[in-house]
Amino acid sequence: MTTNEKALQLHAQWNGKLETVSKTPVKSREDLSLAYTPGVAEPCKVIADDREAAYQYTIKANTIAVISDGSAVLGLGNIGPYAAMPVMEGKAVLFKEFGNVNAVPICLDTQDTEEIIRTIVNIAPAFGGINLEDISAPRCFEIEERLKELLDIPVFHDDQHGTAIVVLAGIINALKVVNKKKEDCKVVVNGAGSAGIAITKLLLTYGFSNVILCDKSGILTKSSPDLNFMQRKLMESTNPQQETGHLADAMRQADIFVGVSAPGIVTQEMAASMNENAILFAMANPVPEIMPDLAKAAGVRIVGTGRSDFPNQVNNVVAFPGIFRGALEGRAPQITEKMKLAAAHAIAALVPETDLSDTNILPEAFRPEVAQVVAEAVKSNI
Amino acid sequence: MTTNEKALQLHAQWNGKLETVSKTPVKSREDLSLAYTPGVAEPCKVIADDREAAYQYTIKANTIAVISDGSAVLGLGNIGPYAAMPVMEGKAVLFKEFGNVNAVPICLDTQDTEEIIRTIVNIAPAFGGINLEDISAPRCFEIEERLKELLDIPVFHDDQHGTAIVVLAGIINALKVVNKKKEDCKVVVNGAGSAGIAITKLLLTYGFSNVILCDKSGILTKSSPDLNFMQRKLMESTNPQQETGHLADAMRQADIFVGVSAPGIVTQEMAASMNENAILFAMANPVPEIMPDLAKAAGVRIVGTGRSDFPNQVNNVVAFPGIFRGALEGRAPQITEKMKLAAAHAIAALVPETDLSDTNILPEAFRPEVAQVVAEAVKSNI
Repeated sequence: MTTNEKALQLHAQWNGKLETVSKTPVKSREDLSLAYTPGVAEPCKVIADDREAAYQYTIKANTIAVISDGSAVLGLGNIGPYAAMPVMEGKAVLFKEFGNVNAVPICLDTQDTEEIIRTIVNIAPAFGGINLEDISAPRCFEIEERLKELLDIPVFHDDQHGTAIVVLAGIINALKVVNKKKEDCKVVVNGAGSAGIAITKLLLTYGFSNVILCDKSGILTKSSPDLNFMQRKLMESTNPQQETGHLADAMRQADIFVGVSAPGIVTQEMAASMNENAILFAMANPVPEIMPDLAKAAGVRIVGTGRSDFPNQVNNVVAFPGIFRGALEGRAPQITEKMKLAAAHAIAALVPETDLSDTNILPEAFRPEVAQVVAEAVKSNI
Repeated sequence: MTTNEKALQLHAQWNGKLETVSKTPVKSREDLSLAYTPGVAEPCKVIADDREAAYQYTIKANTIAVISDGSAVLGLGNIGPYAAMPVMEGKAVLFKEFGNVNAVPICLDTQDTEEIIRTIVNIAPAFGGINLEDISAPRCFEIEERLKELLDIPVFHDDQHGTAIVVLAGIINALKVVNKKKEDCKVVVNGAGSAGIAITKLLLTYGFSNVILCDKSGILTKSSPDLNFMQRKLMESTNPQQETGHLADAMRQADIFVGVSAPGIVTQEMAASMNENAILFAMANPVPEIMPDLAKAAGVRIVGTGRSDFPNQVNNVVAFPGIFRGALEGRAPQITEKMKLAAAHAIAALVPETDLSDTNILPEAFRPEVAQVVAEAVKSNI
C-alpha cells in the first residue's frame, strides 16, 4: 500500500483522528450530581464572581483552538474549510501527543478578514490560546495582529512563527558548525508569504543585519511594485545595499539561503555561487527548492529541508507544542519576540555542541523532552 | 464534604472535565507522515473534490458543538460565557459517556442574535451537529430557527426540545397508569420560556387539544399583553376556551400540570383542585414548584420532578445523547417533530408496561441501552 492509500485508510478508520474524552467518571447518580446539576452550579457561581477562576475550574487552562479558513492549506492552496479539517485535526493531535495541550480543530466557513476576527473573538472564552493555521498572506498578518489586540490569550500563527523559530534554531547551530558570526553573514530568504516574512523578521530580531527578501519577481526593494503592508514594512530593515536583480543575483556570495517557495527553483549554479561554508534550507514541500544531493555537489556545506527522509529536517513540531505548553503554564497573555527567541535558543541547545555536525543541527522531533524544554524556556521569558 | 465542595474539587482536579485525545498513535516517523504531512494531504484532496467525504475522513461524522452564550444558565441566569463553561463541559461529557458522541463546548462572548447566528454558521464545517444550550428566550427561538435554515446539519436547542421530549415520554406512560386518554385531558403548562413553549408545542403535536399556557401574569390568552412571537403563535392553538385568570384558575380540574417555572409557586390547595388521578411534573430546579410529598398529600396521583432524589425524574440525559447519536448515524439534516415524537415514544417504551406504576414512568438514565434505543427510533424516522 502506498503512503497515500495508508493515509486514507487511517483517516477513514475512525472517521477522523480526534475524540473528546471525559476526565471524570459518570457512572453513578453522585458522579452526575457533581459533574452536572446540581453540583456544576458551584464552579459556575465562582467563575461568575471571578473570571480568573475559569483557569482553575474549566478546560480553558489547557485547551487551545486550532483555527483555519482553509485558504492556504499545505501546498494545496485554497481548498476551503471542509478539506482543511484533516490538517487541523492532525495539528490538534500533535499538540496533545507532543505537548499535552488539548486542542480543538475549528475550520471557518468564511474568508472575510473581519468575519474571521469577529468569529474568533466570539468563541475565545472557552480557550486558553488560539493557534492560527494555513491562512493566506497578507490577511494572516492583519488577522493575527488584530486578534492580539482584542484578546487576552496568546494568538500564534504557526505557519509564520513556528517555522521562523525552527529555522532560527537551525541557523544558530549551523553557524557554530561552520564557525561564522551572524554579523558577517549575508542571508537570502526566498518566498515573501507568511513564512518568509516571519523568518525575515525573526532573523532581524536575532541580529542579522544583511537579509535580502526575494519573491517570484526577484529581489524586493523599497521601490518594488505591489508590496503588501508587511513586505513594505520589512523594506526598512532588509536589503541594506538595496541590491536589485533576480534570486540568482541575491544568492551570489550569500552565506545562508532560506527557501519557503517552490520546488526546484534553485539551480546548482546558484548554489555554487554562494559563499564558502554555505548554509541552505530548502523547505518547499514535498519537493525542495533544490535536492540536497545537488546542493551538496555544488559545494553547499549544510543543507536542511522540510522532509523527514533527509538530514536536518526543519519541523515545526519541535516548536509549537512546547510554545503553547509554556504559554499556558505561564498564563502568558501573548507570545512575544522574546519568547520566540528563547524557544529558538532552547531548540538549538537540545543538540549538544559536541554532537553538532553538517548533518545534525536540529533535534529529533520524537525526543520526549523537546516540548518540556521549549516550554520552560518560553515560561521563563514571559 | 458537601456536594458543592466536592463539585468544586472535582472541577479543579484536572482543570475542567474534558480532554481531546488522539485516536491514532504518533510514535514514529511513519505515524507522523500518515496523520500529518505528507499523507494528510490525501484526505484533504479527496474532500476538496467531494465535500461529503468529510463525513468519512474527519471528525465531522461524530462530533457536535455544545454552544451557549451564557444568558440563561441553569437557574443562575445570565452569568456570561466564562461561567457557563462548566455546564457546557458537563453536557459534552454526558454526550460522550451516554451517547458516544464527541462534543466540544463553545461559549460565546456575544449575546447579540445576529452575531451568534453568524458565529455558529462560521464554525459549523468542523461539526456534524449543533446543540444549543442555556440561551435565553425569546432569542433562542429565532437563533434556532435561523440556524436550521442556514445549516445542513442538525441544530437542537436542548433546553427546549430535550425537556419536551422527556416530559412527553413521562406523560405517555403516566396516562397509561391512570388510564386516561390524551383527548380527554386538560393540560396546564406553567412557565412560558424556552422549555414551556417547546413542551406546549410538542404536546400539541402529539395530540393534546386542551393545553393552557401560563406565566407569572397567569393564563395566557390571545389578548395578553407583551407576548413574544412564539407565545403569540401558540395562542392560535392553545387555551381553546380562552380561559382567563391566575394559575390557580387554570389548574382547577386539570388532569396534567407541567411546571418549568419557579420554586414553591404551586400550593397544596391548587394541587388539590386538580382532577382525579392528576399528573404533576414540578421541574423547577433545585426546588420544585411543589414538593412531591405535599402534592401527594393533596391528592395528586403521579408526581415527577427534575431531581434524582425523588421518583420519576424528568432528566434530559435520557434524550439528548441518543437523539444526536441517531441523527449523526442517519446523517439527518434536521431533527424534526417526527423524530422528536419517535424519541418520546422510545423513551416511554423503555419502561415495560408491566413495570409501570405511579412511581415508575421514566427509564433510569444509567441504563446502558437508553441512548441506542432512542438513536434507533430517531434514525428510523429521518
